Amino acid sequence: MQIRPATHADHDTIWNIFHEIVVAGDTYAFDPRMSREEAFAYWFRADTHTYVAETDARVVGTYILKPNQLGPGAHVANAAFMVASDAQGSGVGRRMAEHCLSEARQTGFRAMQFNFVVSTNTAAIHLWKQLGFKIVGTLPGAFRHPEKGYVDVYVMFLSLLED
Amino acid sequence: MQIRPATHADHDTIWNIFHEIVVAGDTYAFDPRMSREEAFAYWFRADTHTYVAETDARVVGTYILKPNQLGPGAHVANAAFMVASDAQGSGVGRRMAEHCLSEARQTGFRAMQFNFVVSTNTAAIHLWKQLGFKIVGTLPGAFRHPEKGYVDVYVMFLSLLED
Repeated sequence: MQIRPATHADHDTIWNIFHEIVVAGDTYAFDPRMSREEAFAYWFRADTHTYVAETDARVVGTYILKPNQLGPGAHVANAAFMVASDAQGSGVGRRMAEHCLSEARQTGFRAMQFNFVVSTNTAAIHLWKQLGFKIVGTLPGAFRHPEKGYVDVYVMFLSLLED
Repeated sequence: MQIRPATHADHDTIWNIFHEIVVAGDTYAFDPRMSREEAFAYWFRADTHTYVAETDARVVGTYILKPNQLGPGAHVANAAFMVASDAQGSGVGRRMAEHCLSEARQTGFRAMQFNFVVSTNTAAIHLWKQLGFKIVGTLPGAFRHPEKGYVDVYVMFLSLLED
């Protein structure tokens, strides 16, 4: 598996992955009717680094790394990950997460924060915990799950400073 | 004191208040060098309702009310408040906050979340607690205070559902 910055040639595949995940509506707080233009405005924002994971010359995942806030909050990174449905469970998310943490450290970020981890997304939470993230906040009923109704959302945080 | 939707005629005053607060750099995670255009892109976003508080025909504060997330997270509101420095301590913030909670309930929001309350901003935290907000998360060192260095940030949350 190779992880590299996204290029224009990846746009169709990224949109396919993004659209599939947003329409499923069980992990991200995006409007399922979000257009390709709106998705790209988010995924390729000026202050955002966008990467893809490739296996056998096929893009199977994508992630973004960016400051979570501006100015006096810009030392904390934020990231988001998406894996194609037929590549899930094959370690793509973990490889992208490790790459992302490495990039964030090199960029000089002091910490990484996930603002909105849906509590029913147990695979993601398990992975983040294995990588050292801690749940530092719980947002009661902040996500409307398509089957489970209103469910809690976690804020997760990892210091990137050496101990 | 009158609280009403902002109009184009309020733009200069809003920018004065916004710029003063962002340059001080001790409460908001905005770049102190943020331009008027960038500030307005944020304060007047398409999905955002922008209000001003007026005393004796003078605008002394402004606030925004918007969904904190999109799609399956859009039932939780987010808000931000700014008071002119020479009007602070005179109840403008409280009046705007009460107006905001009323507007949010009427709009049908189920809860309100503040994502980034700097822990040294004790006047704001005191007010939010009086209004029923609870600290549901703590982000370690997530704000670089101009005098105090890295300080914690709180995530605060209030349910708007009737008990």
